[in-house]
Amino acid sequence: MSSEPPPAAPAPPAADELAADLAAATLSKKQQKKDARKAEKAEKAAQRQQQQPQAADAEDPFASHYGDVPVEEIQSKDISGRVWSKVGDLDEAAAGRPVLIRGFAHAIRPVSKKMAFVVLRQSMSTVQCVLVANADAGVSTQMVKFATALSKESILDIEGVVSLPKEPLKSTTQQMIVVLCEYMFSAILQVEIQVRKIYCINRAIPTLPINLEDAARSEAEFEKAEQAGEKLVRVGQDTRLNYRSIDLRTPANQAIFRIQCQVENKFREFLLSKDFVGIHSPKLIGGSSEGGAAVFKLMYNGQPACLAQSPQLYKQMAICGGYERVFEVGPVFRAENSNTHRHLCEFVGLDAEMEIKEHYFEVCDIIDGLFVSIFKHLTENCKKELETINRQYPFEPLKYLDKTLKLTYEEGIQMLKEAGTEIDPMGDLNTEAEKKLGRLVREKYGTDFFILYQYPLAVRPFYTMPCYDNPAYSNSFDVFIRGEEIISGAQRVHTPELLAKRATECGIDVNTISAYIESFSYGAPPHGGFGVGLERVVMLFCALNNIRKTSLFPRDPQRLVP
Amino acid sequence: MSSEPPPAAPAPPAADELAADLAAATLSKKQQKKDARKAEKAEKAAQRQQQQPQAADAEDPFASHYGDVPVEEIQSKDISGRVWSKVGDLDEAAAGRPVLIRGFAHAIRPVSKKMAFVVLRQSMSTVQCVLVANADAGVSTQMVKFATALSKESILDIEGVVSLPKEPLKSTTQQMIVVLCEYMFSAILQVEIQVRKIYCINRAIPTLPINLEDAARSEAEFEKAEQAGEKLVRVGQDTRLNYRSIDLRTPANQAIFRIQCQVENKFREFLLSKDFVGIHSPKLIGGSSEGGAAVFKLMYNGQPACLAQSPQLYKQMAICGGYERVFEVGPVFRAENSNTHRHLCEFVGLDAEMEIKEHYFEVCDIIDGLFVSIFKHLTENCKKELETINRQYPFEPLKYLDKTLKLTYEEGIQMLKEAGTEIDPMGDLNTEAEKKLGRLVREKYGTDFFILYQYPLAVRPFYTMPCYDNPAYSNSFDVFIRGEEIISGAQRVHTPELLAKRATECGIDVNTISAYIESFSYGAPPHGGFGVGLERVVMLFCALNNIRKTSLFPRDPQRLVP
Repeated sequence: MSSEPPPAAPAPPAADELAADLAAATLSKKQQKKDARKAEKAEKAAQRQQQQPQAADAEDPFASHYGDVPVEEIQSKDISGRVWSKVGDLDEAAAGRPVLIRGFAHAIRPVSKKMAFVVLRQSMSTVQCVLVANADAGVSTQMVKFATALSKESILDIEGVVSLPKEPLKSTTQQMIVVLCEYMFSAILQVEIQVRKIYCINRAIPTLPINLEDAARSEAEFEKAEQAGEKLVRVGQDTRLNYRSIDLRTPANQAIFRIQCQVENKFREFLLSKDFVGIHSPKLIGGSSEGGAAVFKLMYNGQPACLAQSPQLYKQMAICGGYERVFEVGPVFRAENSNTHRHLCEFVGLDAEMEIKEHYFEVCDIIDGLFVSIFKHLTENCKKELETINRQYPFEPLKYLDKTLKLTYEEGIQMLKEAGTEIDPMGDLNTEAEKKLGRLVREKYGTDFFILYQYPLAVRPFYTMPCYDNPAYSNSFDVFIRGEEIISGAQRVHTPELLAKRATECGIDVNTISAYIESFSYGAPPHGGFGVGLERVVMLFCALNNIRKTSLFPRDPQRLVP
Repeated sequence: MSSEPPPAAPAPPAADELAADLAAATLSKKQQKKDARKAEKAEKAAQRQQQQPQAADAEDPFASHYGDVPVEEIQSKDISGRVWSKVGDLDEAAAGRPVLIRGFAHAIRPVSKKMAFVVLRQSMSTVQCVLVANADAGVSTQMVKFATALSKESILDIEGVVSLPKEPLKSTTQQMIVVLCEYMFSAILQVEIQVRKIYCINRAIPTLPINLEDAARSEAEFEKAEQAGEKLVRVGQDTRLNYRSIDLRTPANQAIFRIQCQVENKFREFLLSKDFVGIHSPKLIGGSSEGGAAVFKLMYNGQPACLAQSPQLYKQMAICGGYERVFEVGPVFRAENSNTHRHLCEFVGLDAEMEIKEHYFEVCDIIDGLFVSIFKHLTENCKKELETINRQYPFEPLKYLDKTLKLTYEEGIQMLKEAGTEIDPMGDLNTEAEKKLGRLVREKYGTDFFILYQYPLAVRPFYTMPCYDNPAYSNSFDVFIRGEEIISGAQRVHTPELLAKRATECGIDVNTISAYIESFSYGAPPHGGFGVGLERVVMLFCALNNIRKTSLFPRDPQRLVP
């Protein structure tokens, strides 16, 4: 076998509608230069540790048991009927069974000419594969040599037999590997694979821009190394994001985005069980920004347009359209120049809107049930993911109550006041005050998750329903996790008269929003709703320090790639 | 009770980040003029049928049993503990039970001064409510008068007792109502409500821009009327979309978007059960369009950017990032000037990408299982929705096989050739040829759903994997429903060498996509995937004639509102 490129495809080029998307992958000039220097360094290193046995040794009787698989073989040539096992499924019951697995070469460690270890990784799981030259097993020293010369992160197919290590964690060499990985993986498999065949499906370049072990270290690891006088490489947030497809392979990142998927699933599942209908509203909307708000503007077939900052209007139209209860999961765009740990220019909004019969507490009750069910689900069913995140980013489990605590805004202000923080009772809370209130509530009520309701009307949008008995307040609420706001919601004004009045009071020209106001004169049920940022929920549930950690490919004022 | 506006909210206006979104609600100047004429006409009509009893009669001993509920009462004043029933849940077993329901006033029909019918609607269900003046029941003639003067589509709360009509469908007046609704609703409830109290929660203007009954008629209804010499009002597609929040209330529209939600749910559920992870990729991407493709361009904090035409690149990066199998549901933007029944400028993409071990048929197998499970789910669990759609837009049920038919592109070409349609065997199929092939396949194999695979390489994007034994063809496929393409998919090139080669052959400057190509040198598993348009699936499953019918707020080259 050889690693020659596959046969040429002589057909003329096809129109490629994705060229624009692909161009996006190109980094900025500055970044390119920076990367070029790094790449040069990497190349030199690569030349030093050049892999020798690209092709199998012709004199080796077991030459067919290893080697680089040419791309032709993976071009959907054949369906062999072979079955690939999952690393995560291998347990002691599998001992003695032959297996075939494909994964990333996580670590490669030569022991001698006759022995080597290869750790194969799939997502959050790894398994140690042992190569021992042995004619009975069909393993040659050339095969061991081939394996040890493989580059990390290459894609490998390994055939072998599952075995239980005879002296678990005792032999130095095994321990070497185990120690190498233990800070990354919450559960090292107690089985090994005795390798019979090893093939490289796709080689990684010898020196990657990011070393996965470096990217996966916890602060504790760095401290331990420092105390031992060792200097470990730190991978900065920007470098991680520049090479996100490598960075995403760290166990913590594998876990974070699986948790994110679970939050969304549970959000949908819970709301569907409560008769909500999932909808999709347009992200391209007419008009340029009139409110001076931070919107992304563009031209749409000659018309001014902008990107939706929320599905608010459309959720409400769906309620007026008779859907009773709706939710949406979709991107939300904010052209804000906010360079903070908690703002993104594009994030995933979890939005819901529902008819209310009498009181906006009906919305709060949905939020209560929804989030308690999400938290319970994560705690009970995502143990491995949470442990994995904890290994790199240790955090205290979220404290929450079975029935979510609700405090009025006034009570919140009062608690802050008693703790020495004076806040304008008719103004909004700033980030610092929110943080402090979170701590106070935790101390007093034992929860990191609570609802603060009845905000001053002045700090809420014009379409927020005022309180019936005190028009200085509104039927609105925010919800907090660990002292940071994750949800905003309210009862909405559902009559055109009050809506026009409130708009005028808020200095909005009713002519610019006439269609919106009129839409409530065609029959509109009382309703309310809320919006959540998916990335924030994951960030705060796991107490991560930066929202860029919970966005697959984050967009902030500086970052538009990859 | 009065319908006075609620107390004023004197607080200063709040910053409103949604102003831009709201401005989008404003229609174009031209449309405004058109609408103004309509509104004028409507107003005159309204004056003629001006509702008289806004407030209850002071001399009526039962005055508290009806009237307009002022908005203050709905401002979250109180939680009464009352329970609202659902119209759809009312069956014969409920006879004799007192109920409270809220819904749209679908139809109002006076019989005499002492009797009237009100049909209350919730989504796809209606119930006939009977008012008979009767002191024992607390119902006055004034109350009957109040009810008959209500405007259609107003939001009503009705308290009453469930009863079984004594002579079902026999009394002329009842039949009148039943006939009025029967073409709209697949199942008229066999129960009535004997009204005790009736309150108007929010009035609709007397003459709406769209009459719901007009919007809900089938072609058969129009034909029947024409034969009877009657002239019925047709509501054009544009008018519907201009007043979408009314148009969405038709039973067919209620059903269509519930079906859409179910398609998405099943898509997610099936893929999650196959270990796919749901992801969200950015819609804002760097770079302006280099490929000359139809992208929406904008400025992002001083940098040129555009809207993603597909999550292709990001799905692939997620696979390289170790997620093994991913899917995404999200908006896709195409700035194409395509004014057809099947193109939108913004639609909901259902995308999936997965590692493949040997063959792209692994992807086809997922599609087979996925779509068969979606079709089965709809057929078995969405009977009411499908019947409701059928009432307005009759269609033949989709024919599909338990194991999806796969034909090679060559076989497809051959079938067309034999049927007298000559197609360039190395070119792509046009819409007409696709339609014809759909008919031929249906005749020969008895299915409306099939996979056509091994397309010529020349008609697919450069990142499509060529066939291993014939580089003129590719490891790609399209999937058809009723002769229209809904899915496009393929194995992707996973080695940087072949990718660069293919790009060059397709006339793409590899420097512009260097980061994309390089990302496959960091360890990249063989993979493939596909993309589906959600609106198309629903449109073609239900054999609807226009994709605007399956987009909640469609965006086409002309339409950007509401």
